[in-house]
Amino acid sequence: MVYLTRVEHFNAAHKLWNPSWSPEKNNEIFGKCANENWHGHNYEIHVTIKGETQKETGFIFNAKRLSAIINEYVCDKLDHKNLNLDVDFIKGEFTTAENLTIKIWEQLQPVLQAESVQLHCVKLFETPRIYVEYYG
Amino acid sequence: MVYLTRVEHFNAAHKLWNPSWSPEKNNEIFGKCANENWHGHNYEIHVTIKGETQKETGFIFNAKRLSAIINEYVCDKLDHKNLNLDVDFIKGEFTTAENLTIKIWEQLQPVLQAESVQLHCVKLFETPRIYVEYYG
Amino acid sequence: MVYLTRVEHFNAAHKLWNPSWSPEKNNEIFGKCANENWHGHNYEIHVTIKGETQKETGFIFNAKRLSAIINEYVCDKLDHKNLNLDVDFIKGEFTTAENLTIKIWEQLQPVLQAESVQLHCVKLFETPRIYVEYYG
Amino acid sequence: MVYLTRVEHFNAAHKLWNPSWSPEKNNEIFGKCANENWHGHNYEIHVTIKGETQKETGFIFNAKRLSAIINEYVCDKLDHKNLNLDVDFIKGEFTTAENLTIKIWEQLQPVLQAESVQLHCVKLFETPRIYVEYYG
Amino acid sequence: MVYLTRVEHFNAAHKLWNPSWSPEKNNEIFGKCANENWHGHNYEIHVTIKGETQKETGFIFNAKRLSAIINEYVCDKLDHKNLNLDVDFIKGEFTTAENLTIKIWEQLQPVLQAESVQLHCVKLFETPRIYVEYYG
Amino acid sequence: MVYLTRVEHFNAAHKLWNPSWSPEKNNEIFGKCANENWHGHNYEIHVTIKGETQKETGFIFNAKRLSAIINEYVCDKLDHKNLNLDVDFIKGEFTTAENLTIKIWEQLQPVLQAESVQLHCVKLFETPRIYVEYYG
Repeated sequence: MVYLTRVEHFNAAHKLWNPSWSPEKNNEIFGKCANENWHGHNYEIHVTIKGETQKETGFIFNAKRLSAIINEYVCDKLDHKNLNLDVDFIKGEFTTAENLTIKIWEQLQPVLQAESVQLHCVKLFETPRIYVEYYG
Repeated sequence: MVYLTRVEHFNAAHKLWNPSWSPEKNNEIFGKCANENWHGHNYEIHVTIKGETQKETGFIFNAKRLSAIINEYVCDKLDHKNLNLDVDFIKGEFTTAENLTIKIWEQLQPVLQAESVQLHCVKLFETPRIYVEYYG
Repeated sequence: MVYLTRVEHFNAAHKLWNPSWSPEKNNEIFGKCANENWHGHNYEIHVTIKGETQKETGFIFNAKRLSAIINEYVCDKLDHKNLNLDVDFIKGEFTTAENLTIKIWEQLQPVLQAESVQLHCVKLFETPRIYVEYYG
Repeated sequence: MVYLTRVEHFNAAHKLWNPSWSPEKNNEIFGKCANENWHGHNYEIHVTIKGETQKETGFIFNAKRLSAIINEYVCDKLDHKNLNLDVDFIKGEFTTAENLTIKIWEQLQPVLQAESVQLHCVKLFETPRIYVEYYG
Repeated sequence: MVYLTRVEHFNAAHKLWNPSWSPEKNNEIFGKCANENWHGHNYEIHVTIKGETQKETGFIFNAKRLSAIINEYVCDKLDHKNLNLDVDFIKGEFTTAENLTIKIWEQLQPVLQAESVQLHCVKLFETPRIYVEYYG
Repeated sequence: MVYLTRVEHFNAAHKLWNPSWSPEKNNEIFGKCANENWHGHNYEIHVTIKGETQKETGFIFNAKRLSAIINEYVCDKLDHKNLNLDVDFIKGEFTTAENLTIKIWEQLQPVLQAESVQLHCVKLFETPRIYVEYYG
């Protein structure tokens, strides 16, 4: 079993806000991330697949095809977007790094499975100092 | 003459939009950066000062004091903010990397001058692949 | 299960020395790391916790709180210190990257457990080219 | 159990080509990587070993010795070489990142085992955006 | 005057060889870079332009257009190529980092000038530890 | 005129201390850097030379030779050393990043001049967030 990772990126705005809480409670819990006018990040995403190398190519899967899938199903939907307002698959939910990573997994897993590729891990850097990993 | 640089960072939302243009023209010129619901970045700022080393310290200026000034006059005003809506010194103007770098210079230069420190350069990374330098 | 990592850093001096060995043997085994007058590093620490996202926040744990804990229990005790002389929890033992990583785990694990947080991994970069991981 | 990683690098040329396919099929599957006149990369290799810390040193294994082994058995054989033509242990096979990582594992594993060191992972960056991990 | 930099990359093979020298002399002077079967690098290129911000956009020049120019006139011609054999504008000359940087400048300068953009610097990383800057 | 930079690194211990001041004043001015038992850094040094490309090589100067000079005259004298106690060319002076950069310039400039090479800049990273540049 070999693991192959492709790195992509997208830039987006978001805020952390619990609508059932008062503004004071939101500020207390989410701090500056609760700024009503949004803030944003340069997100970096590492998508790791696993499998055996194929006899005809030496690949477990074509990295260019992997890149195309990540861009079509994830980055194109998130890049230069507002995660809370513009993105079908997360709007209405907390746009924390944790949730975003899970949602990205849910976008990619069925597409990769349909190509007989096993998704191993989605790793998302919100900043160079905060990152999340999800293995399904 | 020696040059000392301190690196700091802030995360912010913004959009690029010319209100005197149609939405079509804004999209044509600014592309995805014109998304009405904002996007954002992890900005990294390099502030370079120049001077001669002081006899009593071997410093040209205390890097901790430099860091405190950058945070008070720049990062605290920009971090987790919307550059177009929340920041007194740039709202109403284009929040391009170029303009933001000039505005940051204008924030820092008088404060540093008041401490007899010569500002040399402000370098701003909007993403790891786009950065701006301004020397006054 | 989701994994969240926070990155922090500290700068410290140390040396590698076995007091039961001759200076010659110390130099043979530890090489330049045995320099009696110390050397030092910019250490970078990655602390990974795991858990499920909470319904009220979308967090597994507040990253700001995680950062505060790492700083209080680890970085503040190690930053700008001599690991062999100044740090209660490692002095008298080998200050190798391996031991330091284990000791940092032992500092963090009970504090995080008291907040019902599961520590997954401590990863410590001694230099950009040497790093250690410990999972308890 | 503690995990220690040493990072090394080498620069090499290669191409991806299946000799049983037509040039058209090679170009279709391998794209630009099939350029008959080669292309190349700055490869970065992370070698992770695992073990318990030794009483006399606090090391699981001497990182300088680990570095020397990686250089003797891997980097010296690959650095400034053509992977398809010059390297005994991979020539005649696909020089994909996947295969190269497996071959590097096979070079290192017996040497490390002979020194009673347990190899845990070989991680190879072909570019900053594509990397492979292999655990044997 | 403001300086804007766009970073792009390409992967290529090359060798350093003086055809008027013996193989021995080539090996003596160019070392491993003279390997007859080529080696290669992940090159990273920083293209810096300078100018004043435009009233209608706040840009000195559209970074997306700058990226498109760099890709059309430089990266597309160099990526996954053999610099000595495949690239019209450098083949037959030494493919040192110095020469390559000058040649890239000569490709970009007239194109940018035709768009009234002033090229300031081309900076080329051959590896993370060797880079060249050229200002015309 | 072309500029060529070579990056090297060394790890060292130091402290900032003015012996004509009280401990209180040292702590007030130098903060944690005044810790009597030392602290340390992974220093990264960028040495930039300038010149014209040579007809026989396409080099302005052989980067391997430049690396060897930097290591012989700088890194070997500083690596795994205590800057205040072990290093002839800075002991007795403030080991600030500013002074260290100037002293490194003074080590390199005559050696490079003797090889007819023009030193342009020494850039020293004390941490990833503090760096100094000196142009003589």
